[in-house]
Amino acid sequence: MIKTVRTVDELRKIVRGWRAEGLSMGLVPTMGALHAGHMALAARSLETTDRTIATLFVNPKQFGEGEDLESYPRDEQTDSDKLGQAGVHLLFAPDVDQMYPANFSTGVSVGGLGDVLEGTYRPGFFDGVATVVSKLLNQAGADRAFFGEKDYQQLQVITRMARDLNIPTVIEGVATIREEDGLALSSRNVYLSAEERRAAPVLYQTLMQVASRVKAGDDIIELENWGREQVLAVGFSSVDYLSVHDAETLEAFGERSRPGRVLVAAKLGRARLIDNVPV
Amino acid sequence: MIKTVRTVDELRKIVRGWRAEGLSMGLVPTMGALHAGHMALAARSLETTDRTIATLFVNPKQFGEGEDLESYPRDEQTDSDKLGQAGVHLLFAPDVDQMYPANFSTGVSVGGLGDVLEGTYRPGFFDGVATVVSKLLNQAGADRAFFGEKDYQQLQVITRMARDLNIPTVIEGVATIREEDGLALSSRNVYLSAEERRAAPVLYQTLMQVASRVKAGDDIIELENWGREQVLAVGFSSVDYLSVHDAETLEAFGERSRPGRVLVAAKLGRARLIDNVPV
Repeated sequence: MIKTVRTVDELRKIVRGWRAEGLSMGLVPTMGALHAGHMALAARSLETTDRTIATLFVNPKQFGEGEDLESYPRDEQTDSDKLGQAGVHLLFAPDVDQMYPANFSTGVSVGGLGDVLEGTYRPGFFDGVATVVSKLLNQAGADRAFFGEKDYQQLQVITRMARDLNIPTVIEGVATIREEDGLALSSRNVYLSAEERRAAPVLYQTLMQVASRVKAGDDIIELENWGREQVLAVGFSSVDYLSVHDAETLEAFGERSRPGRVLVAAKLGRARLIDNVPV
Repeated sequence: MIKTVRTVDELRKIVRGWRAEGLSMGLVPTMGALHAGHMALAARSLETTDRTIATLFVNPKQFGEGEDLESYPRDEQTDSDKLGQAGVHLLFAPDVDQMYPANFSTGVSVGGLGDVLEGTYRPGFFDGVATVVSKLLNQAGADRAFFGEKDYQQLQVITRMARDLNIPTVIEGVATIREEDGLALSSRNVYLSAEERRAAPVLYQTLMQVASRVKAGDDIIELENWGREQVLAVGFSSVDYLSVHDAETLEAFGERSRPGRVLVAAKLGRARLIDNVPV
């Protein structure tokens, strides 16, 4: 049974004790509904630090109107069991009042990086992410914090935010975990019907082909258009974006000498899936 | 001679050493041009913590267009001497590139509290303050940080921001230091001509009268109007605001059972002066 705390005071008391013993600490922020992707973050933290703290908080500030805040999958008991079995040392699972007390009125915003791609389709999403993550980092005061590359833009936004605000926690990205057929693990994959689930891996296959043809020197605009057609052809209802970007600034991919990233967001039935691969 | 460092890395190295010795730390953020008000902050820090760090950074992000960023008084040698003589242990004086490196793009914003009064007349000012102060607090990791009550709304914005983002530094307000005739000390008082300097104390005298008549039960709107007339009558060219507010939320003063605050901002020659007193 993993120890669970619900207040910042309890969390800090335990952290102070660990600090006093000279132990290093890793933080794994999650919204629960844990899958092998989350467990890979925990494994990386367990491997590189002495004590691992997982957090479970479905952050209302990062859900827009009409999004799935109410229906987002929640099962703390199962999550807690998984973390305990993996050897995670502490679960911090605050309620909304603990995170956003009366008169809460501060927002953290990352311009540029947070305005493109997901930022266009989910206004306010990255403000909600940057705000809650800055809180979690300050609450725990861990040495390192682990985020999945599946949410690639989120990882870049958090890395920039922590650097800009001088939060002294190292942000580390962990490679995306995939099903055997290539579909990136996501808590939202449960929204897929059996038929949709069969079509879903085309997202990853298309990204891989686009990345390989960018490397080969093909025209980027044509590749992006081709990619979108592939995805729509197998039953996705719309493609918010499928495009090639600078891996760090997320600006349009220009110099092929710099690392690039192909990113996609597309709707399949009730689910909106995102994925990305390096160039 | 006070030790001066210019990079976050050097600052943190010294702070880590002090932490390892079990010493407590106080932070005194300033924009330089130090007067007895700043020195009262330093004195309070020296009194309550083992090591005091002063910072000197004229923060471009809190100056609006047409404001006095270029002409803001700067004299690091004199400031540094004053801090050394007072027994302050360390001066952190970063340059702009150290605080805002390439691709800096994160902003911290306090809604509500930061939108009224000064927020109306200096758009972006409190965003600049909240952003730089969250950085300074994270850079130093001190136990306590000291801010003057002269900038009362700023103190409330910073207190709220630190609470909301769970920055583990206690924010402490220190009472305003005044000239013998009541004028609040300010680095911008140097902008006053001899004649303006003679008129300036009317600001404080008026606030004191308003506060005392609020306590006596007089009508607040009438008092605010009366106060503005007093200030204009002695040669101030305009009054941005002179009004009574809830001391914590800064909303319009309603219940007389809660602590209130009378705040003023008014222009006198080249200077824009602010002041406040409790009710």
